[in-house]
Amino acid sequence: MAKIVMKFGGTSVADLDRIRHAAGLVKQEVERGNQVAVVVSAMAGETNKLVGWTRELSPLHDAREYDVVVAAGEQITAGLTAVALSAIGVPARSWMGWQIPIRTSSMHGAARIQNIDRTLLDQRLADGQVAVIAGFQGVAPDNRISTLGRGGSDTSAVAVAAAISADRCDIYTDVDGVYTTDPRIVPKARRLDKITYEEMLELASQGAKVLQTRSVEIAMLHRVPVRVLSTFAPENGGTLLCDEDDIVEKRPVSGIAYSRDEAKITLLRIPDQPGVAAAIFGPLADAGINVDMIVQDVSADKAKTNLTFTVSRGDLARALETIQAAQSAIGYRDITSDASVAKVSIIGIGMRTHSGVAQTMFRTLAEKGINIQVISTSEIKVSVLIAEEYVELAVRALHSAYELDAG
Amino acid sequence: MAKIVMKFGGTSVADLDRIRHAAGLVKQEVERGNQVAVVVSAMAGETNKLVGWTRELSPLHDAREYDVVVAAGEQITAGLTAVALSAIGVPARSWMGWQIPIRTSSMHGAARIQNIDRTLLDQRLADGQVAVIAGFQGVAPDNRISTLGRGGSDTSAVAVAAAISADRCDIYTDVDGVYTTDPRIVPKARRLDKITYEEMLELASQGAKVLQTRSVEIAMLHRVPVRVLSTFAPENGGTLLCDEDDIVEKRPVSGIAYSRDEAKITLLRIPDQPGVAAAIFGPLADAGINVDMIVQDVSADKAKTNLTFTVSRGDLARALETIQAAQSAIGYRDITSDASVAKVSIIGIGMRTHSGVAQTMFRTLAEKGINIQVISTSEIKVSVLIAEEYVELAVRALHSAYELDAG
Repeated sequence: MAKIVMKFGGTSVADLDRIRHAAGLVKQEVERGNQVAVVVSAMAGETNKLVGWTRELSPLHDAREYDVVVAAGEQITAGLTAVALSAIGVPARSWMGWQIPIRTSSMHGAARIQNIDRTLLDQRLADGQVAVIAGFQGVAPDNRISTLGRGGSDTSAVAVAAAISADRCDIYTDVDGVYTTDPRIVPKARRLDKITYEEMLELASQGAKVLQTRSVEIAMLHRVPVRVLSTFAPENGGTLLCDEDDIVEKRPVSGIAYSRDEAKITLLRIPDQPGVAAAIFGPLADAGINVDMIVQDVSADKAKTNLTFTVSRGDLARALETIQAAQSAIGYRDITSDASVAKVSIIGIGMRTHSGVAQTMFRTLAEKGINIQVISTSEIKVSVLIAEEYVELAVRALHSAYELDAG
Repeated sequence: MAKIVMKFGGTSVADLDRIRHAAGLVKQEVERGNQVAVVVSAMAGETNKLVGWTRELSPLHDAREYDVVVAAGEQITAGLTAVALSAIGVPARSWMGWQIPIRTSSMHGAARIQNIDRTLLDQRLADGQVAVIAGFQGVAPDNRISTLGRGGSDTSAVAVAAAISADRCDIYTDVDGVYTTDPRIVPKARRLDKITYEEMLELASQGAKVLQTRSVEIAMLHRVPVRVLSTFAPENGGTLLCDEDDIVEKRPVSGIAYSRDEAKITLLRIPDQPGVAAAIFGPLADAGINVDMIVQDVSADKAKTNLTFTVSRGDLARALETIQAAQSAIGYRDITSDASVAKVSIIGIGMRTHSGVAQTMFRTLAEKGINIQVISTSEIKVSVLIAEEYVELAVRALHSAYELDAG
């Protein structure tokens, strides 16, 4: 007997037929003798509708009330899924975040799970009842409904799996696993049977949308075996997130991610002296704007230099306002920005032991005439910022260069 | 400064424009210096959609999960209304049943409010914050979401008004008050400025749909001044529910109600002896079927008699099954039923002191050639069962006979 968490995304519960289909998959696991907790998203389109209503009433809406409205989507699916399970003879009970409870921080709209009380879930699972948990939601310290940010149901599922010490967390979605890159851009992209937590974390952080980044962090921290598989073809097997030790052949590059949600800001002729970085990035941090890549020119002029950094496109306008408001403290001469840039990243734990991996990337892009604007690296990742129009070309060229193409 | 509860029904919050309009009405009350608690229904059509989904998945769904699904409708409206209020500068916070809490019985789908904790509401209202309460819902003893049955938001509103000792409970709806009868049948129906709790309770019980019966019971018990008025023309003033002492001119008949949701069952030649009524109505009560009117023939045959009673149409099939299963215990010879009957009732506290009121009813119906099948009376009400096809004719004739026609 195993303890299993099954998570169904919005397209997997998009209508009553699909909810019935998902219930059928749950029944199979129960009939194998397993204890099952189910985590559900809102029906596809429902969250967007609710978010749209809230924004239309007030662009500057209270985040607490936003959470009340949008959390209703998962509540509906949780109840319907419990009904669908009962209808096929599987005892089931729905659980809202506040009932378990799933305690979160008070950052409404993007709350972090702090604690999940396993007591009630353990009792019900031991009694043979399937727990159908509303994903995406929890309860904040002041007893108000909170939500975890878009894609948060992945995080709910992995966090529940960690809390109840589940043997596996299966993420049922509309793709059949994690691919070497986006198959819409590279038809020869291959599904990975296994991927390490570290690689998945980089893939998700760098733009791959298959799992929410936070869910991978929690999986890695608690070593939860997570499987990504298709609701509509689960027999394909999907992709397993696992430890590095469980992967025999460590390719230098396992996957290629890209993100168009990038914008570049360059400050020209800033003083090349201690404290200037703090003067720039302090106000941005205070405004809640995440800065990603940063590069500072090696200037010929010893006293002045140029500095370039990237933010997400949605933050560009606010970032420019914030920098302009701090102009006297920073002392730059001019400021330029560009929202038509994109980031392409190569990711692989084999990078640690293979040499020349980055060099292959730079040479490949150069051969295609693609200019690299900014570079950033980590132990298992190289990211480059390029003009957005070259994204598909770059991804395809890199996919071939690292011998990731199928068959 | 007064403490006011404002309740908005489904048509009053049917879309974002109407939610904004309702928020505007709330703002007016706040600007008059009043403390305001708002109770909202689901957006018109939303509850039907959610009920439909649940039933489609399983006709015999778990009532607990039904409640989880349908309560989401009010949750959405409560959050949106709070957002709309904040957007026009009125501090507001939404409240779900479990957050206040509004404690109910465990009869899911038709729960009764047992207790409302006023502590948090009192604090927020004193701080000048409008409390936007999700109607129709509460929390059952086992910490699960419960709902109060259709029209339950009226009950939520009056119960909240009683709990916080409100000076008035305003029910905003799509009609501008309580009428002498249904204006769709009698265009000359008049709006009543005032009506006693007792009369309103009978009107609601006998088929008038303007308020849920349970809400009137609570208003009467706690003497909550309830006003029914139009969201779209509140200046018309509406109808006030009040004590008998507050009404100067006591007409013999204040209103005429009708209900098509009636079905008649007749048992032929049952033993005319003690215990037979218990043998019939015991099993029906056990099956949760409400019996309304009952009449037993004065039979020529001393040993045998006939018995007729009415149930709601939705219960007819189950009632027949129940009776047939108990045939040997009851000992009837034959059973007949008729679902094309309707009940027409005249209601008025003046009936207590005026004589001949019932006689006018019987004579009026006789003059129109309408046969009375069953009669039942209370101190302030006379109800008759007639063939459904005569409903409009009967109501119009009675409306004129009791001089209720407008101008």
